Amino acid sequence: MKEMFGGPGKVSGLGLRVGQFVFAAASIVVMVSARGFFNATAFCYLIASMGLQLLWSFGLACLDLHALRSKKNLQNPVLVSLFVVGDWVTSILSLAAACAAAGVTVLFARDLHYCRAPYNFPCSRFQISIALAFISWFLLAISSHVMFWLLAATREELCLMR
Amino acid sequence: MKEMFGGPGKVSGLGLRVGQFVFAAASIVVMVSARGFFNATAFCYLIASMGLQLLWSFGLACLDLHALRSKKNLQNPVLVSLFVVGDWVTSILSLAAACAAAGVTVLFARDLHYCRAPYNFPCSRFQISIALAFISWFLLAISSHVMFWLLAATREELCLMR
Repeated sequence: MKEMFGGPGKVSGLGLRVGQFVFAAASIVVMVSARGFFNATAFCYLIASMGLQLLWSFGLACLDLHALRSKKNLQNPVLVSLFVVGDWVTSILSLAAACAAAGVTVLFARDLHYCRAPYNFPCSRFQISIALAFISWFLLAISSHVMFWLLAATREELCLMR
Repeated sequence: MKEMFGGPGKVSGLGLRVGQFVFAAASIVVMVSARGFFNATAFCYLIASMGLQLLWSFGLACLDLHALRSKKNLQNPVLVSLFVVGDWVTSILSLAAACAAAGVTVLFARDLHYCRAPYNFPCSRFQISIALAFISWFLLAISSHVMFWLLAATREELCLMR
């Protein structure tokens, strides 16, 4: 199987996973600290989705760390298939949550003017939380594409070897 | 290069493209027919994004039709790379637009109760338009994955032949 930047059991892969869960955790913390976030379903969904991403990325970071310390090879087709499915599901849910929250924030800020007096919604906190969620999603999207590429390359390798 | 369901210059590929632009056009028509859609930035962005997807998918459907009629082979690495980039950019923009619009619609329907009297927003039209946009995005996501798989498989094939 090919050696690629961001592949499972690599230092670059571990770096991506750590970045994903750190930004997801930061996004949750900032959103929870914003007054009245629970009034919008999209913001609650963002917290749930970032929570899922945090768990998934933290789990894979631990696996990468274990593989690095014990010098195990994680790049077999079955494991990579599992990573591909998990990464794609998580990344689509994260992008959906970040975009839904962004749509609601733009509505509050530009269309309904809820960020000004007398409402004074904490829009800057919503925006920071969403920006962090987008960064976390972007790092996850890199991992997903690397995994998908590895899977496609391996399948092709196996076919040509037959 | 591999022959795959939904690949460029195939009947299945043409079918996917036709589905994409038909659903994108239907989504635009339903959204434009909803009273007051222009008051939410997310709905305007959905129309813009579905417009882009309509143009892209229609262009590629014409190319597929031309390839089928003249029996040309569209599956060369340079063309597939172009399709991959275009498909991925369009599909991420479409998903973002559909999710942002969905977030705003959920806010109107569940959190602010704007769908009932005295506001009576046409929420069912918003929902139908967003559902059509999601179907269109789903078909585009299939095309994107097939193209990415074809590209990865070809690169690997070329490497192994060296």
